[in-house]
Amino acid sequence: MSTQDSDMTGQTAEDGEADRPTEEGTRAEIMDATYEALRKHGYAELTIQTIADEFPKSKSLLYYHYDAKDDLLVDFVDWLVEEFAAEVGADPADGAEERLRSAFEMLVPVEPTETEDDVRLSLLELRMRAPRDERFARRFEALDERVQKEFAAAVRAGIARDRFRDADPEFVAETLYSLATGTTVRRLTTDRDSATAHRALDDVIERLRA
Amino acid sequence: MSTQDSDMTGQTAEDGEADRPTEEGTRAEIMDATYEALRKHGYAELTIQTIADEFPKSKSLLYYHYDAKDDLLVDFVDWLVEEFAAEVGADPADGAEERLRSAFEMLVPVEPTETEDDVRLSLLELRMRAPRDERFARRFEALDERVQKEFAAAVRAGIARDRFRDADPEFVAETLYSLATGTTVRRLTTDRDSATAHRALDDVIERLRA
Repeated sequence: MSTQDSDMTGQTAEDGEADRPTEEGTRAEIMDATYEALRKHGYAELTIQTIADEFPKSKSLLYYHYDAKDDLLVDFVDWLVEEFAAEVGADPADGAEERLRSAFEMLVPVEPTETEDDVRLSLLELRMRAPRDERFARRFEALDERVQKEFAAAVRAGIARDRFRDADPEFVAETLYSLATGTTVRRLTTDRDSATAHRALDDVIERLRA
Repeated sequence: MSTQDSDMTGQTAEDGEADRPTEEGTRAEIMDATYEALRKHGYAELTIQTIADEFPKSKSLLYYHYDAKDDLLVDFVDWLVEEFAAEVGADPADGAEERLRSAFEMLVPVEPTETEDDVRLSLLELRMRAPRDERFARRFEALDERVQKEFAAAVRAGIARDRFRDADPEFVAETLYSLATGTTVRRLTTDRDSATAHRALDDVIERLRA
C-alpha cells in the first residue's frame, strides 16, 4: 500500500492489495505498460522499473498506486479477468456454437502471435505462484471461473434454443477449459501446435448438435 | 561439466550437459535426493546444497557429476522419462482400457498425495523454463512424446484386439494428454479436483468401445 488511508467502504486493503487507480484511464495505461513489459522482458526479468519505462505518465503516479511489483501483478490478473468478461458474449446475436468457438479461440488461437504468446507464458509463470501466494490463487480462481462460466453459458444457450442436445454444461465447460489450458502449456513449452485441440473442439460441438 | 574429459563416444558434452554418473545406484540416489529436495523446498528455493543435504554419499561425488544445479535438473527430467517408461506397460496382460486408465491416473491421480503434488508443481515450474532453455525444451519434448506414445499404444492395442472401434490413436492420445496436463495445472493452482477429468476419460473410453 502506498498509503494507510482507507477506501470508500471504510476498509483498508488488509491483504496488501494495491491502491488501484480510481481513474480508469490511468489504470488502463498502467496495465498496458505491464503487458508490454511482460512481453519484452518476460516474467523472470520483470521489475517495476521496466513497467515504469513503458508508462507514458509520471512514474511517481505508478509508484503511488502500486507499492510493490506483486501488487501490480495481482491487479494485472484482475484486469485480464475484466477484459475477458468484456470481450466474450459481446455479440448477443452469436449462435451458441460461435460463442463456444470464440471463447475457445481466445484461449487457443489458431494463429497465435508471438506477442500474445509471450504474455501467455508470463501468465502461466504468474499462475505458478498461486500455490504459495493466496492473492494470486484468488485471482486465478476468478479467471478460471469466469472462463468456465462463459463456456457453460454458451452450451446452455444452445440447449435452450434446441441447437444442442441435452448435456451437462458444467462438464463440457470444465473439460474444454482444461483441454485449452493443457494445450497452451504444451504449445508454449514444446513445438506442439493447437490443431488437435481444435479438432477436439469440433468433436465436442459435433456431439452437442441435436 | 565437472571435467573437460570427453566421454566414451569421444564427444564432449557441448551443451553443458551433466557428466551423468555411470554407476546407476549413485544416479538413482542423486535423483531421489533431488525429488526429496524439490518436495521439501520447492523449485524456487532449490539449491545444489539442499539436494546435497538429502544425498547419503559424499557430497563431493554429487559435485563431481553435476557442475551446476541446472545440469542436475536436466538429468532429473531425463530420469522421470525413464521412470515413466519403466512403469507403463509393465504388465503386458493388462487390457487396453486398463492400460489407458493406468497411464492417465499416473498423471491425474484420483487421490494425489501432497508429496507427489509438491513435486508435480516443481516439475511445472521446471517446464516453464523450456521456452528460454533448449536443454529443458528437449527433455519436456521427450517426456511428452513418451507419455503420448503410451496412450496411443494402448488405443492401438484395443483396436487390434477388437475391444475398441476404429479410431485415430494419435488424436486420442494427444487429447487425453492435454486434458491431463490442463487438469494438473488447474488442480495445483486452484481448488479444482480431478473428478471431471476422470469423467471425461470414462467418456472417451465409452466412445472407443466397439
